[in-house]
Amino acid sequence: MAADADNDDDIGNGLRDIKGVQSFLPSEQMTREYIADTLKRHFRLYGYRPIETSILDFYDIAASKYAGGAEILKETYRLKDQGNRDLILRYELTFKLAKLIGMNPNLRMPFKRYEIGKVFRDGPTGTGRLREFTQCDVDVVGTASTLADAEIIALAFDIFRDFGIGVYIEVNSRNLMFGIFERLGIPERNRIDAALSLDKLLKIGESGVRKELLDKGISKDIIDGIFKILGEADSRKSNEEKLEYLESIANNSLAKTGVAELKEFFGFCASMHATGDLRLTPTLVRGLGYYTGIIYEVYLEKGKMKSTLAAGGRWDHMIKDFLKSDREYPATGITFGLDSIYAALQEKKASLPEAAARSVPVLLIIPVDTMEESLKILQQSRGIGISADILPGKKLTKALEYANSESIPYTMVVGKKELEIGSVKLRDMHTGREREISLSALKSSLTLLKDYGAHLGAES
Amino acid sequence: MAADADNDDDIGNGLRDIKGVQSFLPSEQMTREYIADTLKRHFRLYGYRPIETSILDFYDIAASKYAGGAEILKETYRLKDQGNRDLILRYELTFKLAKLIGMNPNLRMPFKRYEIGKVFRDGPTGTGRLREFTQCDVDVVGTASTLADAEIIALAFDIFRDFGIGVYIEVNSRNLMFGIFERLGIPERNRIDAALSLDKLLKIGESGVRKELLDKGISKDIIDGIFKILGEADSRKSNEEKLEYLESIANNSLAKTGVAELKEFFGFCASMHATGDLRLTPTLVRGLGYYTGIIYEVYLEKGKMKSTLAAGGRWDHMIKDFLKSDREYPATGITFGLDSIYAALQEKKASLPEAAARSVPVLLIIPVDTMEESLKILQQSRGIGISADILPGKKLTKALEYANSESIPYTMVVGKKELEIGSVKLRDMHTGREREISLSALKSSLTLLKDYGAHLGAES
Repeated sequence: MAADADNDDDIGNGLRDIKGVQSFLPSEQMTREYIADTLKRHFRLYGYRPIETSILDFYDIAASKYAGGAEILKETYRLKDQGNRDLILRYELTFKLAKLIGMNPNLRMPFKRYEIGKVFRDGPTGTGRLREFTQCDVDVVGTASTLADAEIIALAFDIFRDFGIGVYIEVNSRNLMFGIFERLGIPERNRIDAALSLDKLLKIGESGVRKELLDKGISKDIIDGIFKILGEADSRKSNEEKLEYLESIANNSLAKTGVAELKEFFGFCASMHATGDLRLTPTLVRGLGYYTGIIYEVYLEKGKMKSTLAAGGRWDHMIKDFLKSDREYPATGITFGLDSIYAALQEKKASLPEAAARSVPVLLIIPVDTMEESLKILQQSRGIGISADILPGKKLTKALEYANSESIPYTMVVGKKELEIGSVKLRDMHTGREREISLSALKSSLTLLKDYGAHLGAES
Repeated sequence: MAADADNDDDIGNGLRDIKGVQSFLPSEQMTREYIADTLKRHFRLYGYRPIETSILDFYDIAASKYAGGAEILKETYRLKDQGNRDLILRYELTFKLAKLIGMNPNLRMPFKRYEIGKVFRDGPTGTGRLREFTQCDVDVVGTASTLADAEIIALAFDIFRDFGIGVYIEVNSRNLMFGIFERLGIPERNRIDAALSLDKLLKIGESGVRKELLDKGISKDIIDGIFKILGEADSRKSNEEKLEYLESIANNSLAKTGVAELKEFFGFCASMHATGDLRLTPTLVRGLGYYTGIIYEVYLEKGKMKSTLAAGGRWDHMIKDFLKSDREYPATGITFGLDSIYAALQEKKASLPEAAARSVPVLLIIPVDTMEESLKILQQSRGIGISADILPGKKLTKALEYANSESIPYTMVVGKKELEIGSVKLRDMHTGREREISLSALKSSLTLLKDYGAHLGAES
């Protein structure tokens, strides 16, 4: 649970938080930093490099219809600066990547990047819907090969395996879906609109989607056709059988492109041993207009969470259109939700990876009228890579209580009598066992604690 | 240099960035992530734990005069959300910590936390002055001991030693300064105002400060007195001699408190072996009203940069006043500027720590009609912790050119003929040397590349 109450009411002292805007205490933030670091490690293993884009940007640039446009602008925070410029807070990282590429035209392609950062949406709040949250994006720009899509699937399976979170991934092709629409006679200008209605299938059910499509001027016959084809495909068991059926009804080049790219994609997934639970899902749409080819969503296998842990797909036209360029900028990528991964890890709290729950500090030094010597030991401990702290001015029992309540695994009592005979007492707070440690062997004794690292990038 | 031009003009395609708002390409961001990770590692070694607070907050909470008030609000971005609520973007992390403590009254003291995050200031831009930038704060709340201040100095020296950046730290006591003001007859209500004028000494010189103080209604005699005492103190060489002189003129309890806390502080620094270049600087003020006792600023020893690399001090009253509480919340802390540390590292680019310049990826696999086998090797490499990538569909010379231009240290050509005899070619791009590697010994050969880690938290 977030540190702050999730509502606008104050708690009696005038303090309150904005709904959908969270803060995190150390017990939570330790896990969140572990998530971000784990993601970064995998992103780099796959050859993605970090960038950082700004949160503030000009309204007119973000409002370009090619950057997500009207769909997303409804929920965008706007503000004026003191120079009366019309600004926004970024609502996603994808259009920021498009802009970065536009402003740095000499970047070498393919350009693989990751970015982890805050985004802002001024929309309704609720389960999985926040106003300020962290997105973790990986994208590659400059390659049209479905190998790039397969690589993202391999990456996603690797990451969730590392987190110990069981997932399945739904995959589809927008080309295939639009090809089916074409077969049924839906005019090109209505395709994205029809797709965005289908995207609400889980939320509003088939009858809700049917009503929306009717309202959008699509005939009952066509709607029947959509559900018949999607239902037929869905009734097949394996991805191969589904693809076989879809191939059999693919009577135009769009649908054929969709089938072909899915086949190639599944082939690359096999070669890369991206062998998790990958499900061809012909009803999958994704809620944004700018997606083009392969699209995918990652779901929790078991558990109460219905929202996606990660999602993405191809967005081959956005940069070109956005930059009004003649050059092609095919692109594909995925967004990992830090908050939803955190929630998924919370659900299985008992088995949180040890690294996620590491304590800071590992060692609490308790001086008993031995301040100077204690400070020396404190700095020695830190110097060899042990996260350590000192608690002066407290009685011994109070200090031990403090260590207990803060889950600090080791304490060291530095007393006068012990110092005189050249030793200190090291206490394992978990077992209660105490050991006398010789000051001359302090360094080697402390080194044994180092496995509790409790900090990033521990030096060896 | 930042990726984006530092001005509002577009570069011909309608794209432009806000002045003082930066974006960073991978070559820059790799170093920035190295800086943030190094800071975090040291923060944790010293027992500080992470928190995360929100960027968006209510205007009325931030506008509380106890949270920095009018001084800082002049430069605060304000916005309305769709519910017409009056919001701000946070301008610093300190008041967010005060609020977090107010909203979580059961946090155990002392509470040591760090937070790294973006802050926003709608002010004039220029050297070292940005509108969107990253602050890295460590603070401890709940201890009045100068040991906490000394610990921050030790931490700062450790960090800049690790970065290989030579620094000196200026230190002073607000109590001492206000005690000197009292001795000279400046009424209590004018003290902070007079101090904030003195803070501009470097910027506007003695004559400028004198004029400001006169305008604030302080007499010429008193102003002469200020500069006489500060000049006398400054003319002494060592910190001990300066303190001795200041003690000799300390005729009231405020000044005596200041001298005593500085003496105790220097004693703790010595015990902690915080033995860098620490300079008692009686003219040091810090530009915010909320500071109380010991204050400090970290400067680059050599180099063109005049702005501080880090700065902070005691802010004992803010939380209590802000929360309108009866309880005392003494606090002290420091802010490290990610951007100024980055600039300092840039100045000495030639000797950038190896870790800061590590390449992602380390290995580029070049398939020559051997896609499937190449993908297998690619995933094997990543699986054992080597940051690797593949570049299909390019001629060999083009692929090697790409690796060169992207500073990828190793390439592996997977050719058909070599595969038939069970080997691949590994090329050191720096020396140009090639080695035939047996596929059966691939894993051990690749493991040799692992030292190039090129990712965080490399597993051993």
